[in-house]
Amino acid sequence: MKASLKEVKALVFDVFGTVVDWRGSIIAEGRTLGRKKKIDLDWEAFADAWRAGYAPAMDRVRRGELPWASIDVLHQMILSELLAKHRIERLSEREKDDLNRVWHRLKPWPDSVKGLARLKKRYTVATLSNGNMALLVNMAKHGGLPWDCVLSAELFHHYKPDREVYLGAARLLGVRPRELLMVAAHKSDLDAAAAAGLRTAFVQRPKEFGDPANKDLTPEKRFDLNVKDFGELAAKLGCR
Amino acid sequence: MKASLKEVKALVFDVFGTVVDWRGSIIAEGRTLGRKKKIDLDWEAFADAWRAGYAPAMDRVRRGELPWASIDVLHQMILSELLAKHRIERLSEREKDDLNRVWHRLKPWPDSVKGLARLKKRYTVATLSNGNMALLVNMAKHGGLPWDCVLSAELFHHYKPDREVYLGAARLLGVRPRELLMVAAHKSDLDAAAAAGLRTAFVQRPKEFGDPANKDLTPEKRFDLNVKDFGELAAKLGCR
Repeated sequence: MKASLKEVKALVFDVFGTVVDWRGSIIAEGRTLGRKKKIDLDWEAFADAWRAGYAPAMDRVRRGELPWASIDVLHQMILSELLAKHRIERLSEREKDDLNRVWHRLKPWPDSVKGLARLKKRYTVATLSNGNMALLVNMAKHGGLPWDCVLSAELFHHYKPDREVYLGAARLLGVRPRELLMVAAHKSDLDAAAAAGLRTAFVQRPKEFGDPANKDLTPEKRFDLNVKDFGELAAKLGCR
Repeated sequence: MKASLKEVKALVFDVFGTVVDWRGSIIAEGRTLGRKKKIDLDWEAFADAWRAGYAPAMDRVRRGELPWASIDVLHQMILSELLAKHRIERLSEREKDDLNRVWHRLKPWPDSVKGLARLKKRYTVATLSNGNMALLVNMAKHGGLPWDCVLSAELFHHYKPDREVYLGAARLLGVRPRELLMVAAHKSDLDAAAAAGLRTAFVQRPKEFGDPANKDLTPEKRFDLNVKDFGELAAKLGCR
Protein backbone atom coordinates (compact mmCIF):
# COMPACT_ATOMS: atom_id res chain seq x y z
CA MET A 1 0.00 0.00 0.00
CA LYS A 2 1.17 3.56 -0.70
CA ALA A 3 2.76 5.18 2.35
CA SER A 4 0.28 8.07 2.23
CA LEU A 5 -2.57 5.61 2.69
CA LYS A 6 -1.27 3.69 5.69
CA GLU A 7 -2.76 6.20 8.11
CA VAL A 8 -6.23 6.05 6.56
CA LYS A 9 -8.92 4.98 9.04
CA ALA A 10 -12.13 5.91 7.25
CA LEU A 11 -13.43 6.35 3.71
CA VAL A 12 -16.04 8.90 2.68
CA PHE A 13 -17.81 8.54 -0.65
CA ASP A 14 -19.35 10.94 -3.07
CA VAL A 15 -22.65 9.27 -4.00
CA PHE A 16 -24.34 10.58 -7.19
CA GLY A 17 -22.31 9.08 -10.03
CA THR A 18 -19.68 7.52 -7.76
CA VAL A 19 -21.82 4.94 -5.90
CA VAL A 20 -25.08 5.06 -7.86
CA ASP A 21 -26.03 5.46 -11.50
CA TRP A 22 -28.28 8.53 -11.38
CA ARG A 23 -28.65 8.79 -15.17
CA GLY A 24 -29.61 5.19 -15.86
CA SER A 25 -31.98 5.10 -12.88
CA ILE A 26 -33.82 8.29 -13.89
CA ILE A 27 -34.10 7.21 -17.53
CA ALA A 28 -35.54 3.81 -16.52
CA GLU A 29 -38.10 5.27 -14.09
CA GLY A 30 -38.94 8.08 -16.55
CA ARG A 31 -39.69 5.64 -19.34
CA THR A 32 -41.94 3.57 -17.06
CA LEU A 33 -43.80 6.71 -15.97
CA GLY A 34 -43.99 7.90 -19.58
CA ARG A 35 -45.65 4.68 -20.71
CA LYS A 36 -48.10 4.76 -17.82
CA LYS A 37 -49.06 8.43 -18.22
CA LYS A 38 -48.64 8.65 -22.01
CA ILE A 39 -45.88 11.22 -21.80
CA ASP A 40 -43.70 11.23 -24.90
CA LEU A 41 -40.30 12.56 -23.91
CA ASP A 42 -36.58 12.04 -24.50
CA TRP A 43 -35.86 10.74 -21.00
CA GLU A 44 -32.09 10.73 -21.58
CA ALA A 45 -32.15 14.45 -22.30
CA PHE A 46 -34.56 14.93 -19.38
CA ALA A 47 -32.18 13.17 -16.95
CA ASP A 48 -29.23 15.21 -18.22
CA ALA A 49 -31.16 18.49 -17.93
CA TRP A 50 -32.33 17.66 -14.39
CA ARG A 51 -28.78 16.92 -13.33
CA ALA A 52 -27.43 19.99 -15.16
CA GLY A 53 -29.65 22.22 -13.03
CA TYR A 54 -28.13 20.85 -9.84
CA ALA A 55 -24.74 22.58 -9.63
CA PRO A 56 -26.11 26.07 -10.48
CA ALA A 57 -28.85 25.65 -7.84
CA MET A 58 -26.31 24.62 -5.18
CA ASP A 59 -24.04 27.47 -6.19
CA ARG A 60 -26.86 29.93 -5.48
CA VAL A 61 -27.03 28.49 -1.95
CA ARG A 62 -23.23 28.52 -1.65
CA ARG A 63 -23.09 32.21 -2.66
CA GLY A 64 -25.85 33.07 -0.19
CA GLU A 65 -28.38 34.06 -2.89
CA LEU A 66 -30.72 31.37 -1.56
CA PRO A 67 -31.08 30.39 2.11
CA TRP A 68 -30.17 26.79 2.95
CA ALA A 69 -32.30 24.40 0.93
CA SER A 70 -31.97 20.62 0.81
CA ILE A 71 -31.28 18.74 -2.41
CA ASP A 72 -34.87 17.44 -2.32
CA VAL A 73 -36.04 21.05 -2.49
CA LEU A 74 -33.51 22.00 -5.19
CA HIS A 75 -34.45 18.92 -7.25
CA GLN A 76 -38.12 19.90 -6.94
CA MET A 77 -37.39 23.45 -8.16
CA ILE A 78 -35.51 22.17 -11.20
CA LEU A 79 -38.16 19.51 -11.89
CA SER A 80 -40.95 22.13 -11.84
CA GLU A 81 -39.09 24.20 -14.41
CA LEU A 82 -38.46 21.17 -16.62
CA LEU A 83 -42.09 20.01 -16.48
CA ALA A 84 -43.25 23.53 -17.37
CA LYS A 85 -40.76 23.77 -20.24
CA HIS A 86 -41.94 20.46 -21.70
CA ARG A 87 -45.60 21.35 -21.00
CA ILE A 88 -46.12 18.18 -19.00
CA GLU A 89 -49.37 18.84 -17.16
CA ARG A 90 -50.65 15.30 -16.62
CA LEU A 91 -48.95 14.68 -13.30
CA SER A 92 -50.71 15.14 -9.96
CA GLU A 93 -48.84 16.75 -7.07
CA ARG A 94 -48.39 13.30 -5.62
CA GLU A 95 -46.98 11.94 -8.87
CA LYS A 96 -44.59 14.89 -9.10
CA ASP A 97 -43.43 14.27 -5.51
CA ASP A 98 -42.92 10.62 -6.32
CA LEU A 99 -40.93 11.48 -9.46
CA ASN A 100 -38.78 13.85 -7.42
CA ARG A 101 -38.05 11.01 -5.04
CA VAL A 102 -36.50 8.96 -7.85
CA TRP A 103 -33.26 10.39 -6.40
CA HIS A 104 -34.01 8.35 -3.22
CA ARG A 105 -34.16 5.19 -5.37
CA LEU A 106 -31.04 5.50 -7.55
CA LYS A 107 -29.46 2.13 -8.30
CA PRO A 108 -25.92 1.26 -7.22
CA TRP A 109 -23.30 0.52 -9.89
CA PRO A 110 -22.84 -3.28 -10.17
CA ASP A 111 -19.65 -3.30 -8.05
CA SER A 112 -20.78 -0.83 -5.34
CA VAL A 113 -22.46 -3.05 -2.73
CA LYS A 114 -19.87 -5.81 -2.89
CA GLY A 115 -16.95 -3.36 -2.89
CA LEU A 116 -18.33 -1.45 0.11
CA ALA A 117 -18.84 -4.70 2.03
CA ARG A 118 -15.15 -5.55 1.47
CA LEU A 119 -13.94 -2.08 2.44
CA LYS A 120 -16.18 -2.06 5.51
CA LYS A 121 -14.31 -4.99 7.06
CA ARG A 122 -11.22 -2.83 7.49
CA TYR A 123 -12.42 0.77 7.37
CA THR A 124 -15.31 2.92 8.46
CA VAL A 125 -17.28 3.65 5.27
CA ALA A 126 -19.56 6.68 5.11
CA THR A 127 -21.32 8.81 2.55
CA LEU A 128 -20.21 12.40 2.04
CA SER A 129 -22.76 13.68 -0.40
CA ASN A 130 -24.62 16.86 -1.17
CA GLY A 131 -27.77 14.73 -1.03
CA ASN A 132 -29.81 15.27 2.13
CA MET A 133 -29.85 12.75 4.95
CA ALA A 134 -33.34 11.33 4.25
CA LEU A 135 -32.46 10.85 0.58
CA LEU A 136 -29.22 9.03 1.44
CA VAL A 137 -30.83 6.84 4.12
CA ASN A 138 -33.70 5.85 1.81
CA MET A 139 -31.28 5.17 -1.05
CA ALA A 140 -29.13 2.94 1.17
CA LYS A 141 -32.16 0.89 2.25
CA HIS A 142 -33.40 0.68 -1.33
CA GLY A 143 -30.08 -0.38 -2.81
CA GLY A 144 -28.62 -2.33 0.12
CA LEU A 145 -25.64 0.00 0.59
CA PRO A 146 -23.94 -1.08 3.85
CA TRP A 147 -22.80 2.29 5.21
CA ASP A 148 -21.40 2.54 8.72
CA CYS A 149 -22.58 6.12 8.81
CA VAL A 150 -24.52 8.50 6.58
CA LEU A 151 -23.00 11.98 6.38
CA SER A 152 -24.39 14.80 4.26
CA ALA A 153 -23.64 18.40 3.39
CA GLU A 154 -26.99 19.03 5.11
CA LEU A 155 -25.31 18.49 8.50
CA PHE A 156 -22.98 21.41 7.87
CA HIS A 157 -25.27 23.70 5.89
CA HIS A 158 -22.50 23.90 3.32
CA TYR A 159 -22.38 22.18 -0.04
CA LYS A 160 -19.30 20.53 -1.50
CA PRO A 161 -16.82 21.74 -2.61
CA ASP A 162 -16.94 24.02 0.46
CA ARG A 163 -14.11 23.12 2.83
CA GLU A 164 -16.50 22.91 5.81
CA VAL A 165 -17.99 19.67 4.45
CA TYR A 166 -14.68 17.74 4.29
CA LEU A 167 -13.43 19.03 7.64
CA GLY A 168 -16.84 18.46 9.21
CA ALA A 169 -16.80 14.81 8.16
CA ALA A 170 -13.35 14.29 9.72
CA ARG A 171 -14.49 15.97 12.94
CA LEU A 172 -17.69 13.87 13.25
CA LEU A 173 -15.81 10.64 12.51
CA GLY A 174 -13.15 11.55 15.07
CA VAL A 175 -10.21 11.30 12.64
CA ARG A 176 -7.60 13.71 11.30
CA PRO A 177 -8.15 14.92 7.73
CA ARG A 178 -5.14 12.89 6.54
CA GLU A 179 -6.72 9.76 8.06
CA LEU A 180 -9.76 10.23 5.83
CA LEU A 181 -9.90 9.09 2.19
CA MET A 182 -12.38 10.83 -0.13
CA VAL A 183 -13.61 8.57 -2.93
CA ALA A 184 -15.22 10.28 -5.93
CA ALA A 185 -15.73 10.08 -9.67
CA HIS A 186 -15.31 13.85 -9.99
CA LYS A 187 -11.93 15.56 -9.92
CA SER A 188 -13.21 18.88 -8.54
CA ASP A 189 -14.56 17.06 -5.45
CA LEU A 190 -11.20 15.36 -4.91
CA ASP A 191 -9.22 18.55 -5.41
CA ALA A 192 -11.33 20.31 -2.77
CA ALA A 193 -10.92 17.34 -0.41
CA ALA A 194 -7.13 17.37 -0.92
CA ALA A 195 -7.02 21.11 -0.24
CA ALA A 196 -8.70 20.37 3.12
CA GLY A 197 -6.00 17.76 3.87
CA LEU A 198 -7.87 14.56 2.97
CA ARG A 199 -6.47 11.67 0.93
CA THR A 200 -8.07 11.07 -2.46
CA ALA A 201 -9.20 8.18 -4.66
CA PHE A 202 -10.51 8.75 -8.18
CA VAL A 203 -13.01 6.21 -9.56
CA GLN A 204 -13.60 6.35 -13.30
CA ARG A 205 -17.31 5.53 -13.76
CA PRO A 206 -17.19 5.88 -17.55
CA LYS A 207 -20.96 5.51 -18.02
CA GLU A 208 -21.98 8.28 -15.61
CA PHE A 209 -22.97 10.57 -18.47
CA GLY A 210 -23.89 7.80 -20.90
CA ASP A 211 -21.07 7.95 -23.45
CA PRO A 212 -17.55 7.65 -21.89
CA ALA A 213 -16.53 10.43 -24.28
CA ASN A 214 -18.62 12.82 -22.14
CA LYS A 215 -16.34 12.42 -19.16
CA ASP A 216 -12.74 13.06 -18.11
CA LEU A 217 -11.46 9.59 -17.16
CA THR A 218 -7.73 10.28 -17.14
CA PRO A 219 -5.94 9.08 -13.99
CA GLU A 220 -4.03 11.84 -12.20
CA LYS A 221 -0.80 11.54 -10.27
CA ARG A 222 -2.01 14.14 -7.79
CA PHE A 223 -4.60 11.69 -6.43
CA ASP A 224 -3.45 9.01 -3.98
CA LEU A 225 -5.32 6.34 -5.92
CA ASN A 226 -6.86 5.99 -9.39
CA VAL A 227 -9.16 2.98 -9.85
CA LYS A 228 -11.76 1.71 -12.26
CA ASP A 229 -14.26 0.49 -9.63
CA PHE A 230 -14.73 -0.35 -5.92
CA GLY A 231 -13.34 -3.85 -6.42
CA GLU A 232 -10.01 -2.38 -7.50
CA LEU A 233 -10.23 0.17 -4.66
CA ALA A 234 -10.68 -2.64 -2.11
CA ALA A 235 -7.79 -4.61 -3.61
CA LYS A 236 -5.45 -1.59 -3.58
CA LEU A 237 -6.36 -0.93 0.06
CA GLY A 238 -5.60 -4.53 1.02
CA CYS A 239 -9.23 -5.59 1.65
CA ARG A 240 -10.11 -9.14 0.67
CA MET B 1 -50.89 -3.13 15.88
CA LYS B 2 -52.06 -0.14 17.93
CA ALA B 3 -53.66 2.55 15.77
CA SER B 4 -51.18 5.16 16.99
CA LEU B 5 -48.32 3.07 15.61
CA LYS B 6 -49.62 2.48 12.09
CA GLU B 7 -48.14 5.73 10.83
CA VAL B 8 -44.66 4.97 12.21
CA LYS B 9 -41.96 4.94 9.51
CA ALA B 10 -38.75 5.10 11.51
CA LEU B 11 -37.46 4.10 14.94
CA VAL B 12 -34.83 6.02 16.88
CA PHE B 13 -33.07 4.39 19.81
CA ASP B 14 -31.52 5.64 22.96
CA VAL B 15 -28.24 3.73 23.16
CA PHE B 16 -26.55 3.68 26.61
CA GLY B 17 -28.58 1.19 28.64
CA THR B 18 -31.21 0.66 25.94
CA VAL B 19 -29.08 -0.99 23.22
CA VAL B 20 -25.82 -1.66 25.06
CA ASP B 21 -24.86 -2.75 28.58
CA TRP B 22 -22.59 0.13 29.65
CA ARG B 23 -22.23 -1.12 33.24
CA GLY B 24 -21.29 -4.72 32.46
CA SER B 25 -18.90 -3.63 29.69
CA ILE B 26 -17.06 -1.11 31.88
CA ILE B 27 -16.79 -3.53 34.79
CA ALA B 28 -15.36 -6.27 32.53
CA GLU B 29 -12.80 -3.98 30.87
CA GLY B 30 -11.94 -2.36 34.23
CA ARG B 31 -11.21 -5.71 35.82
CA THR B 32 -8.97 -6.74 32.92
CA LEU B 33 -7.10 -3.43 33.14
CA GLY B 34 -6.89 -3.76 36.93
CA ARG B 35 -5.25 -7.18 36.71
CA LYS B 36 -2.79 -5.97 34.07
CA LYS B 37 -1.83 -2.75 35.87
CA LYS B 38 -2.24 -4.06 39.44
CA ILE B 39 -4.97 -1.58 40.27
CA ASP B 40 -7.15 -2.79 43.13
CA LEU B 41 -10.55 -1.15 42.76
CA ASP B 42 -14.28 -1.86 43.10
CA TRP B 43 -15.01 -1.67 39.37
CA GLU B 44 -18.77 -1.89 39.92
CA ALA B 45 -18.70 1.25 42.03
CA PHE B 46 -16.28 2.82 39.52
CA ALA B 47 -18.67 2.19 36.61
CA ASP B 48 -21.60 3.58 38.58
CA ALA B 49 -19.65 6.68 39.59
CA TRP B 50 -18.50 7.31 36.01
CA ARG B 51 -22.06 7.07 34.75
CA ALA B 52 -23.38 9.18 37.64
CA GLY B 53 -21.15 12.06 36.52
CA TYR B 54 -22.68 12.06 33.06
CA ALA B 55 -26.07 13.75 33.58
CA PRO B 56 -24.69 16.60 35.72
CA ALA B 57 -21.95 17.25 33.10
CA MET B 58 -24.51 17.37 30.27
CA ASP B 59 -26.76 19.59 32.34
CA ARG B 60 -23.93 22.12 32.65
CA VAL B 61 -23.78 22.19 28.83
CA ARG B 62 -27.58 22.35 28.58
CA ARG B 63 -27.70 25.33 30.96
CA GLY B 64 -24.93 27.09 29.01
CA GLU B 65 -22.40 26.93 31.88
CA LEU B 66 -20.05 24.98 29.60
CA PRO B 67 -19.70 25.52 25.83
CA TRP B 68 -20.65 22.56 23.64
CA ALA B 69 -18.51 19.54 24.55
CA SER B 70 -18.85 16.01 23.19
CA ILE B 71 -19.55 13.03 25.40
CA ASP B 72 -15.97 11.85 24.80
CA VAL B 73 -14.78 15.09 26.38
CA LEU B 74 -17.30 14.92 29.25
CA HIS B 75 -16.39 11.27 29.92
CA GLN B 76 -12.71 12.28 30.01
CA MET B 77 -13.41 15.06 32.53
CA ILE B 78 -15.30 12.70 34.84
CA LEU B 79 -12.66 9.97 34.43
CA SER B 80 -9.86 12.38 35.40
CA GLU B 81 -11.71 13.28 38.60
CA LEU B 82 -12.35 9.63 39.42
CA LEU B 83 -8.72 8.61 38.83
CA ALA B 84 -7.54 11.48 41.03
CA LYS B 85 -10.04 10.58 43.76
CA HIS B 86 -8.88 6.96 43.81
CA ARG B 87 -5.20 8.02 43.50
CA ILE B 88 -4.69 5.90 40.42
CA GLU B 89 -1.44 7.21 38.99
CA ARG B 90 -0.17 4.17 37.11
CA LEU B 91 -1.87 4.92 33.79
CA SER B 92 -0.11 6.65 30.92
CA GLU B 93 -1.99 9.28 28.88
CA ARG B 94 -2.46 6.66 26.20
CA GLU B 95 -3.89 4.15 28.66
CA LYS B 96 -6.26 6.80 30.04
CA ASP B 97 -7.40 7.63 26.50
CA ASP B 98 -7.96 3.97 25.81
CA LEU B 99 -9.93 3.54 29.04
CA ASN B 100 -12.07 6.54 28.10
CA ARG B 101 -12.81 4.85 24.79
CA VAL B 102 -14.38 1.87 26.57
CA TRP B 103 -17.60 3.77 25.79
CA HIS B 104 -16.88 3.13 22.09
CA ARG B 105 -16.74 -0.61 22.81
CA LEU B 106 -19.84 -1.17 24.96
CA LYS B 107 -21.45 -4.55 24.32
CA PRO B 108 -25.00 -4.91 23.00
CA TRP B 109 -27.62 -6.63 25.15
CA PRO B 110 -28.09 -10.23 23.93
CA ASP B 111 -31.28 -9.40 21.96
CA SER B 112 -30.14 -6.09 20.44
CA VAL B 113 -28.47 -7.10 17.16
CA LYS B 114 -31.08 -9.70 16.24
CA GLY B 115 -33.98 -7.43 17.20
CA LEU B 116 -32.61 -4.50 15.18
CA ALA B 117 -32.11 -6.75 12.14
CA ARG B 118 -35.79 -7.75 12.32
CA LEU B 119 -36.98 -4.17 12.80
CA LYS B 120 -34.75 -2.94 9.97
CA LYS B 121 -36.63 -5.01 7.40
CA ARG B 122 -39.71 -2.85 7.85
CA TYR B 123 -38.49 0.42 9.39
CA THR B 124 -35.58 2.80 9.23
CA VAL B 125 -33.61 2.21 12.44
CA ALA B 126 -31.33 4.93 13.77
CA THR B 127 -29.56 5.88 16.96
CA LEU B 128 -30.66 8.99 18.83
CA SER B 129 -28.11 9.19 21.58
CA ASN B 130 -26.24 11.80 23.54
CA GLY B 131 -23.09 9.90 22.57
CA ASN B 132 -21.05 11.62 19.87
CA MET B 133 -21.02 10.41 16.28
CA ALA B 134 -17.54 8.82 16.36
CA LEU B 135 -18.42 6.94 19.56
CA LEU B 136 -21.66 5.62 18.06
CA VAL B 137 -20.06 4.65 14.74
CA ASN B 138 -17.20 2.83 16.48
CA MET B 139 -19.63 1.09 18.83
CA ALA B 140 -21.78 -0.09 15.92
CA LYS B 141 -18.77 -1.57 14.13
CA HIS B 142 -17.52 -3.18 17.32
CA GLY B 143 -20.85 -4.72 18.28
CA GLY B 144 -22.31 -5.35 14.81
CA LEU B 145 -25.28 -3.01 15.31
CA PRO B 146 -26.98 -2.72 11.89
CA TRP B 147 -28.10 0.94 11.95
CA ASP B 148 -29.50 2.55 8.82
CA CYS B 149 -28.30 5.85 10.15
CA VAL B 150 -26.36 7.17 13.12
CA LEU B 151 -27.86 10.30 14.69
CA SER B 152 -26.46 12.05 17.73
CA ALA B 153 -27.21 15.02 19.94
CA GLU B 154 -23.85 16.27 18.60
CA LEU B 155 -25.53 17.10 15.27
CA PHE B 156 -27.86 19.56 17.01
CA HIS B 157 -25.55 20.88 19.74
CA HIS B 158 -28.31 20.07 22.18
CA TYR B 159 -28.44 17.16 24.59
CA LYS B 160 -31.54 15.08 25.28
CA PRO B 161 -34.02 15.76 26.78
CA ASP B 162 -33.88 19.07 24.85
CA ARG B 163 -36.71 19.17 22.33
CA GLU B 164 -34.33 20.14 19.50
CA VAL B 165 -32.85 16.63 19.47
CA TYR B 166 -36.16 14.82 18.87
CA LEU B 167 -37.41 17.32 16.30
CA GLY B 168 -34.00 17.41 14.62
CA ALA B 169 -34.07 13.63 14.15
CA ALA B 170 -37.51 13.78 12.52
CA ARG B 171 -36.35 16.57 10.21
CA LEU B 172 -33.17 14.75 9.11
CA LEU B 173 -35.06 11.50 8.51
CA GLY B 174 -37.72 13.35 6.53
CA VAL B 175 -40.64 12.18 8.66
CA ARG B 176 -43.26 13.88 10.83
CA PRO B 177 -42.72 13.59 14.61
CA ARG B 178 -45.73 11.27 14.90
CA GLU B 179 -44.15 8.97 12.28
CA LEU B 180 -41.11 8.50 14.51
CA LEU B 181 -40.98 6.04 17.41
CA MET B 182 -38.51 6.72 20.23
CA VAL B 183 -37.27 3.53 21.93
CA ALA B 184 -35.65 3.92 25.34
CA ALA B 185 -35.14 2.26 28.71
CA HIS B 186 -35.56 5.62 30.47
CA LYS B 187 -38.92 7.22 31.09
CA SER B 188 -37.62 10.82 31.11
CA ASP B 189 -36.29 10.36 27.56
CA LEU B 190 -39.64 9.02 26.39
CA ASP B 191 -41.62 11.77 28.11
CA ALA B 192 -39.51 14.42 26.36
CA ALA B 193 -39.92 12.60 23.02
CA ALA B 194 -43.71 12.44 23.52
CA ALA B 195 -43.81 16.15 24.37
CA ALA B 196 -42.13 16.78 20.97
CA GLY B 197 -44.84 14.69 19.26
CA LEU B 198 -42.99 11.37 18.83
CA ARG B 199 -44.40 7.93 19.59
CA THR B 200 -42.80 6.05 22.47
CA ALA B 201 -41.69 2.51 23.36
CA PHE B 202 -40.37 1.65 26.82
CA VAL B 203 -37.88 -1.23 27.08
CA GLN B 204 -37.30 -2.58 30.59
CA ARG B 205 -33.59 -3.52 30.68
CA PRO B 206 -33.71 -4.69 34.30
CA LYS B 207 -29.94 -5.23 34.59
CA GLU B 208 -28.89 -1.75 33.45
CA PHE B 209 -27.90 -0.76 37.00
CA GLY B 210 -26.98 -4.28 38.14
CA ASP B 211 -29.81 -5.15 40.53
CA PRO B 212 -33.33 -4.78 39.02
CA ALA B 213 -34.35 -3.17 42.31
CA ASN B 214 -32.25 -0.14 41.26
CA LYS B 215 -34.52 0.68 38.34
CA ASP B 216 -38.12 1.70 37.65
CA LEU B 217 -39.42 -1.11 35.42
CA THR B 218 -43.15 -0.46 35.67
CA PRO B 219 -44.95 -0.32 32.30
CA GLU B 220 -46.84 2.94 31.74
CA LYS B 221 -50.08 3.44 29.84
CA ARG B 222 -48.86 6.80 28.58
CA PHE B 223 -46.28 5.06 26.36
CA ASP B 224 -47.45 3.56 23.06
CA LEU B 225 -45.57 0.34 23.81
CA ASN B 226 -44.02 -1.35 26.86
CA VAL B 227 -41.75 -4.29 26.09
CA LYS B 228 -39.14 -6.44 27.81
CA ASP B 229 -36.65 -6.53 24.92
CA PHE B 230 -36.18 -5.85 21.17
CA GLY B 231 -37.61 -9.26 20.26
CA GLU B 232 -40.92 -8.32 21.83
CA LEU B 233 -40.70 -4.87 20.22
CA ALA B 234 -40.26 -6.44 16.77
CA ALA B 235 -43.15 -8.83 17.40
CA LYS B 236 -45.48 -6.03 18.54
CA LEU B 237 -44.57 -4.01 15.45
CA GLY B 238 -45.33 -6.95 13.15
CA CYS B 239 -41.70 -7.68 12.16
CA ARG B 240 -40.81 -11.32 11.69
